[in-house]
Amino acid sequence: VTTDPVSPLPPPPIPLAPGSTIGILGSGQLGRMLAQAAARLGLKCHIYADSPGPAFDVAAATTIAAYDDRAALAAFAMSIAVATYEFENIPVATVDFLSRTVPVRPGAKALACTQDRILEKRLARELGAMTADFGPVDSYDELLARIGQIGTPAILKTRRLGYDGKGQAKIRSLADVKAAFEAMQGQPAILEGFVPFQSEVSVVAVRGLEGAFAAYDVIGNVHRDGILHTSTVPARIAPEAAGKAVDIARRMAERLDYVGVFAVEFFALETASGQDMYVNEMAPRVHNSGHWTMDGAAVSQFENHIRAVAGWPLGSTARHSDTVMTNLIGADYNAWATLAAEPGACLHLYGKHEARPGRKMGHVNRLTAKK
Amino acid sequence: VTTDPVSPLPPPPIPLAPGSTIGILGSGQLGRMLAQAAARLGLKCHIYADSPGPAFDVAAATTIAAYDDRAALAAFAMSIAVATYEFENIPVATVDFLSRTVPVRPGAKALACTQDRILEKRLARELGAMTADFGPVDSYDELLARIGQIGTPAILKTRRLGYDGKGQAKIRSLADVKAAFEAMQGQPAILEGFVPFQSEVSVVAVRGLEGAFAAYDVIGNVHRDGILHTSTVPARIAPEAAGKAVDIARRMAERLDYVGVFAVEFFALETASGQDMYVNEMAPRVHNSGHWTMDGAAVSQFENHIRAVAGWPLGSTARHSDTVMTNLIGADYNAWATLAAEPGACLHLYGKHEARPGRKMGHVNRLTAKK
Repeated sequence: VTTDPVSPLPPPPIPLAPGSTIGILGSGQLGRMLAQAAARLGLKCHIYADSPGPAFDVAAATTIAAYDDRAALAAFAMSIAVATYEFENIPVATVDFLSRTVPVRPGAKALACTQDRILEKRLARELGAMTADFGPVDSYDELLARIGQIGTPAILKTRRLGYDGKGQAKIRSLADVKAAFEAMQGQPAILEGFVPFQSEVSVVAVRGLEGAFAAYDVIGNVHRDGILHTSTVPARIAPEAAGKAVDIARRMAERLDYVGVFAVEFFALETASGQDMYVNEMAPRVHNSGHWTMDGAAVSQFENHIRAVAGWPLGSTARHSDTVMTNLIGADYNAWATLAAEPGACLHLYGKHEARPGRKMGHVNRLTAKK
Repeated sequence: VTTDPVSPLPPPPIPLAPGSTIGILGSGQLGRMLAQAAARLGLKCHIYADSPGPAFDVAAATTIAAYDDRAALAAFAMSIAVATYEFENIPVATVDFLSRTVPVRPGAKALACTQDRILEKRLARELGAMTADFGPVDSYDELLARIGQIGTPAILKTRRLGYDGKGQAKIRSLADVKAAFEAMQGQPAILEGFVPFQSEVSVVAVRGLEGAFAAYDVIGNVHRDGILHTSTVPARIAPEAAGKAVDIARRMAERLDYVGVFAVEFFALETASGQDMYVNEMAPRVHNSGHWTMDGAAVSQFENHIRAVAGWPLGSTARHSDTVMTNLIGADYNAWATLAAEPGACLHLYGKHEARPGRKMGHVNRLTAKK
């Protein structure tokens, strides 16, 4: 055994045998649910994170170390057959470093694109998809020029590291420009035009190691304060619009040599001829809007991600029940005992100790017969 | 903090709060699936077993110690809010000892009864249920006398510690008597008359801390070589017979002050007027024939056991899909990659390393629309 951090291990077998260990970067609830899904298939998980989290309680092995700690990363890489991650803000350098020793799925290419709102939107446009008008903003003067092109209302966002509405500032009129610019705190930004959408939907889909593709039914999403509140399947959307959205998702994944589950969020805009679908963003990971699959589909998004990462055949994405998923955010969590008593409600709690405002504490899936 | 092994802890709150730890005696696949279900509800598990097993990979804490190691048991009891077990052959003394410090659910009363085939059958008879003819056998002369009463064919079984067809010997004719008696190796035994049944079914049900009761749909079981092979829901059984079986299960649980999931196995015998239901045995734990609930029911038997043990309201036992569960025993496991590729099959592997003959390695649930 060598501990040279840049020694590649022999490539893992395809499919990866039960009993093998999958490394997961990140210790949050998505890592937790991934580890649970892996265990169902007889696979072990080793969680690597810079602080303990909900995933630690259900994993066979854990490491607490910084994401740039090369010694810890090398030891982690030697202990696993393949690596994946549960959040898109993992440094690309970390993934590159691990990739010298073990496969990381999805790879650095997908991560680099989805970490940058400009690259992400350019990709969608190249593939013929609609997006909001957008342009990079690196200075105050550039912001003013972009507003001249795009107009108001518009939204200024950091190019990188945004999630759950963080790193965003609305510009309703020119009076908001200064405060919005300052909210970026000097980080590279993107100005996006406003899409007067009627609804938000997402496609949660999976691409296998050898290119197989499967999508769950399109999901209707409602946000509150920038955080997902409910996800409903099936979404109220025309079949043609749903088909278009799934097709865009598939082509984005192909272009990025994507392996695993991902989500593409869309704005749906009613037009005279149907619904226009605007790509909002792509998440290179299992996604909150896919949590309904834990109870409403034959195989959950978590199991399908593990299957893809392990080089297994994809599982069925078929919906067996219509489902409404409701997030339990912050104080919503205090109702856990009431929810536990609600007939037919499928309750999921993440094992977090403190129900801070805005914190995702759990979710509940409510199933009804498939219509 | 005291480490006095007989100090009771304050009683745990009802319902037990998420973040609390449930102790599980036993490290097998049932403990593993219980721990997974607990995690879904935000509860932690501490597994205590005399050797490591599949449950260790998914638990927040583990202890390896003998079931009569009082120091280890005391430390275990101090680390948990409530204890349960995943197999019925746990020593009653272990449960009694733990009970001085923390609640053990189900309690020693249920365990003592279900560990003894005589007590179990007597209970069923007292409640008006049918069973095979039976009688205790403690000597060769007593065996001959019992055969005189019950006749052949009959089955000689150890009174205690039997499972999966172990500790049993068929007596087809008087020529088999000597070998059967010797197979008991001097252990107390029970002679059971043969029931010429057409089918085997089981009731998997749950009783809550405060007496609430819920049963899953009656399950049709097929055994091979004494080990469960398939479980099918719904079972092919008349509604009246199913109702009778569930009623017996409910009354057995009530009489034993039972808390948690349990199974009662029945022989179904066709008669002119319908189906007679003979109680075969009761398992004071989650049961292999209930594994279909992981994919075919809103709330699985594992979650319902955890709910009951934690003093939570019971979850829905409703079936959303017709399901056939097939066990993967020994070499069946070698087909895992084929099963992983089967459309719509829900595959479960237990993370065991070696597929020895007769060993339960996993199971697969196949769902079809509810008829």
